[in-house]
Amino acid sequence: MSLIVQKFGGSSVANADRVRNVAKIITDTYKAGNDVVVVVSAQGDTTDDLIAKAKEITNNPSAREMDMLLASGEQISISLLAMAIKEMGFPSISLLGWQAGFNTSSAYGKARIHNIKADRLRTELGKRNIVIVAGFQGINKYDDLTTLGRGGSDTSAVAIAAALRADKCQIFTDVEGVFTADPRKVEGAKKLEEITYDEMLELATLGAQVLNNRSVEMAKKYNVELEVLSSLTNKPGTIVKEVAKMEKMLVRGVTKDTDVARISLVGLSDTPGVAFRVFDKLAAKNINVDVILQSVGRDGTKDISFTTSEDNAEKAVELLSEMLDCKISCDTDIAKVSVVGAGMESHPGTAAKMFEALYGIDVNIQMISTSEIKISVLIDKKDADRAVSAVHKAFMPEE
Amino acid sequence: MSLIVQKFGGSSVANADRVRNVAKIITDTYKAGNDVVVVVSAQGDTTDDLIAKAKEITNNPSAREMDMLLASGEQISISLLAMAIKEMGFPSISLLGWQAGFNTSSAYGKARIHNIKADRLRTELGKRNIVIVAGFQGINKYDDLTTLGRGGSDTSAVAIAAALRADKCQIFTDVEGVFTADPRKVEGAKKLEEITYDEMLELATLGAQVLNNRSVEMAKKYNVELEVLSSLTNKPGTIVKEVAKMEKMLVRGVTKDTDVARISLVGLSDTPGVAFRVFDKLAAKNINVDVILQSVGRDGTKDISFTTSEDNAEKAVELLSEMLDCKISCDTDIAKVSVVGAGMESHPGTAAKMFEALYGIDVNIQMISTSEIKISVLIDKKDADRAVSAVHKAFMPEE
Repeated sequence: MSLIVQKFGGSSVANADRVRNVAKIITDTYKAGNDVVVVVSAQGDTTDDLIAKAKEITNNPSAREMDMLLASGEQISISLLAMAIKEMGFPSISLLGWQAGFNTSSAYGKARIHNIKADRLRTELGKRNIVIVAGFQGINKYDDLTTLGRGGSDTSAVAIAAALRADKCQIFTDVEGVFTADPRKVEGAKKLEEITYDEMLELATLGAQVLNNRSVEMAKKYNVELEVLSSLTNKPGTIVKEVAKMEKMLVRGVTKDTDVARISLVGLSDTPGVAFRVFDKLAAKNINVDVILQSVGRDGTKDISFTTSEDNAEKAVELLSEMLDCKISCDTDIAKVSVVGAGMESHPGTAAKMFEALYGIDVNIQMISTSEIKISVLIDKKDADRAVSAVHKAFMPEE
Repeated sequence: MSLIVQKFGGSSVANADRVRNVAKIITDTYKAGNDVVVVVSAQGDTTDDLIAKAKEITNNPSAREMDMLLASGEQISISLLAMAIKEMGFPSISLLGWQAGFNTSSAYGKARIHNIKADRLRTELGKRNIVIVAGFQGINKYDDLTTLGRGGSDTSAVAIAAALRADKCQIFTDVEGVFTADPRKVEGAKKLEEITYDEMLELATLGAQVLNNRSVEMAKKYNVELEVLSSLTNKPGTIVKEVAKMEKMLVRGVTKDTDVARISLVGLSDTPGVAFRVFDKLAAKNINVDVILQSVGRDGTKDISFTTSEDNAEKAVELLSEMLDCKISCDTDIAKVSVVGAGMESHPGTAAKMFEALYGIDVNIQMISTSEIKISVLIDKKDADRAVSAVHKAFMPEE
């Protein structure tokens, strides 16, 4: 007998039919002899509807009250799902975040899970109950409700799997797994059977949007085996684990991210500490920086370019204008295209192959950044989709 | 400085404008130098919408899960109201039933309040917060959510007022107070300035529907002064207390109840224990019986008539048919009209005056029942409204 944690997102429980569909998946798993803990998000648009209600009252809602408001969404979905499972003749009980023992930090709206006091979960499993837990939420040291932020239900599921040493944590979504590229846009995109945590992290950061990043980090830390799969089709998904078999591909995936702004500082004085001051200032204001490139100094000056998300760009330019007297430019008309794969470390030709593919369709590369398992290039936004297809084609083996 | 508990029903907080209106009433009370604890129900139709959601899943929902579901309604209204109060510049915090210390029995859907552990309430009041508490809900000894049943928010408010020894508990509704009769139907119906707990109990039972009965019982037990008033007009309402001044009226109110069925058992054997067996059987099946009349025995038989609510009638007839072999008839085409008032004890002419008024409009009285502060008659349902008006006119002083 295994212990399996299953997580279902809001669209998977959006209405009564979907709830029944999910209940069927859960009870099939239970009937196969497994203990099952289920984590659910709020139904469909519930969270957005609640946010709209708050906006009618105030443009600046208290973060504590916002969490109180939003946490009601999962309360509805867990009770409905528990009812549906009972209706099918199986024992089930729903638990709110605090009932399931989720102790979090006090950072309302983006709380971190400190620990899970899993006594109640174990008691209910001991009664052979299918336990339905409200994702996304917990309680802080003041006994006040907190939420983990968008995508927090994935993290809730992984945290439970870690706390209970579950055999597997299945994340059900509306896609069938992790693909080598967006299957709606790239011909020949393939579903991966397996992928490592590190690869998944690179893919998630780059905009694959299948799994919340914090959940993957936590899964890696506690070595929780994840499976990403669809709640609408009955097919195996993609397994995320420490060591994955490589199949026949050199890279795991090709992604694009168009939420990128490049800021260039031209003619900075070439003295020690300049870069430190720039990035320390940005970090202090919570502006995340991605790719950084610094030119070799010349004539006592140097140039630094870096990328950040579009919504941070204006603020970054403003901050830097106050402290620097060099020329500052900002370009948001760009995209980042990346190839990810642990295998590329041992294949020195990977970068060349990527650049060749881009050259072949006449796309100019503006910046390059590499890590052990990733190569990213910045290109014109208008070229992004063509570039992903060309790079994907270059790396994927023909069927 | 006084401590005032204010309770607002679902229609009072049905949308953003109503929430702001309620926030204005609350902050005005706070600005006048009072400590304020507010109890709120779920917004408008929220509870009905949640029940409909459950019905889509199952016709027989688990009571525990139903309470989990329904308790989300108040969670939404308290957080929105706390936001609205903060938006107006006043300190406020929302608390769920369990956070406010509501410990209840485990009878899901109709839980009884065992006690209120008011530490958190006191702490928040000590910080000069306006405390917004979710009505209708609590927590049982298993740490599971419970609800108090319909009208439970009134009881929540009175319980808090009792626990904190509040100076007053104001129940805001969509009517301006307690009237001598339904003002929409009876010309000359007057708002009462004051009324006793006992009178209010008789009026509530008889269908005045202004205050939940359990809340009045609790207010009487802990001597909590209640005020029933409108959230839409800025006028004094009706005070409910132990001893009320009598104004110029002999009776407090005239009410009708059309949810009545009369069941008659004709030709019962006139032996000891028959009545006991009948009403014990009904009580065992949770069938509440109101008026009971027994005829004088004759020819070794006797007749018993009693009333119950319409939805209980069929079940009662079925039960009694199994155990008795007398003739059983059931009439649902009747109404109960009552006059209530503590003053009538010392006025022996009250009953006669009521009967005279009915005789004056040619209404036949089928059964009569009296208590120290109430006289009820059963009449044809079609005569009910005319009867209320005539009786009201007979007792109310002309302006």
